Amino acid sequence: MQEKGISQAVVGRLPRYLRYLGELKENGVERVSSQELSTLMNVTASQIRQDFNNFGGFGQQGYGYNVDYLYTEMSKILGLDREYHFVIIGAGNLGRALGNYLNFERRGFIFRGIFDKDPELVGKEVRGEKIRLINELEDFLKSNKIDIAVLTIPKTGAVGLVDMLVNNGIRAIWNFAHVDLNVPEGVQVENVHLSDSLMKLSYNISRYDREKQ
Amino acid sequence: MQEKGISQAVVGRLPRYLRYLGELKENGVERVSSQELSTLMNVTASQIRQDFNNFGGFGQQGYGYNVDYLYTEMSKILGLDREYHFVIIGAGNLGRALGNYLNFERRGFIFRGIFDKDPELVGKEVRGEKIRLINELEDFLKSNKIDIAVLTIPKTGAVGLVDMLVNNGIRAIWNFAHVDLNVPEGVQVENVHLSDSLMKLSYNISRYDREKQ
Repeated sequence: MQEKGISQAVVGRLPRYLRYLGELKENGVERVSSQELSTLMNVTASQIRQDFNNFGGFGQQGYGYNVDYLYTEMSKILGLDREYHFVIIGAGNLGRALGNYLNFERRGFIFRGIFDKDPELVGKEVRGEKIRLINELEDFLKSNKIDIAVLTIPKTGAVGLVDMLVNNGIRAIWNFAHVDLNVPEGVQVENVHLSDSLMKLSYNISRYDREKQ
Repeated sequence: MQEKGISQAVVGRLPRYLRYLGELKENGVERVSSQELSTLMNVTASQIRQDFNNFGGFGQQGYGYNVDYLYTEMSKILGLDREYHFVIIGAGNLGRALGNYLNFERRGFIFRGIFDKDPELVGKEVRGEKIRLINELEDFLKSNKIDIAVLTIPKTGAVGLVDMLVNNGIRAIWNFAHVDLNVPEGVQVENVHLSDSLMKLSYNISRYDREKQ
């Protein structure tokens, strides 16, 4: 498997495949053709085959794909055959919301702690974890193996934290701060820029209006 | 301007341009070349020119772009020259977090109400808006002009709401439920699938490990 050539666009589609395969599995479906997946997911069958070919194709197309096998392989490709431990930095509503998502845990993403700079929040609980002062984060990272830092703080704070996180073993940043982060090679960043997403919506509303005029 | 040919990939890059232009503007920069933007944003200058050409190019490249003009035009393209009114459906941590984001308001996205099915939440306030029972949503939409519905509820609830929302004037859905929604033509959907985003992170971590082996 040569993954170097696989674009982030393909990667972005993998979780959606996993979601649909999971639903098929739950419904007891054993085999599925690219044509059936295509109808279900509203993408072309050739796109599906092309995406799957990046990973070796997953078996005979003539008979359809084995749902269970495909689901398992897709999980492995997505790295879901191991656990990831994460901390949340920023215990505002968004940070607390993410701490409370049980679905992440089910996928192997283990919530290990939540930090904030506001002393008023310290000691309050988010799913069994007491909010800690951000000053304690560095020591915490030194004595615990944490893979992922979730940044739910304003952008100024986020930029200043990156070096410390990376120097203390953080391998990936899930970044909700509205800023692009510079990280060394080998450290992964995934951005969720909520206001950018909202602007795509306003663009599409106003584009629709412009085209109807 | 012929927008039909503009892909959602291009659209997805526009808010990032606006962000960088806003920062240049704040710093008092008057002109910027595609080369300077390229260095700043870590995309190729030719990508920038190509993206801008979709919208007519925004003036002389030899002298660089006028930052103020480009910012204003980009805002208009993104539909930010008008207001959008939104309601949030689901008053859990995530819904409340979104209700509290003042940045949305600054961009013209006006928070008008928040609804939940849990009677225990009713009457609590999110940024001056009392949480209402979801039964009241349909009447609320009939008597208020709301453009955007933000869905921060589980997927089963989300699917069942779509028709009612669309029949009562909702033009766009900002969907945080982990499901693909079917909407009529002309209704916009923007998905924020948080667990998909997290899986891209686990993919990139494990791919890095596979390549280092």
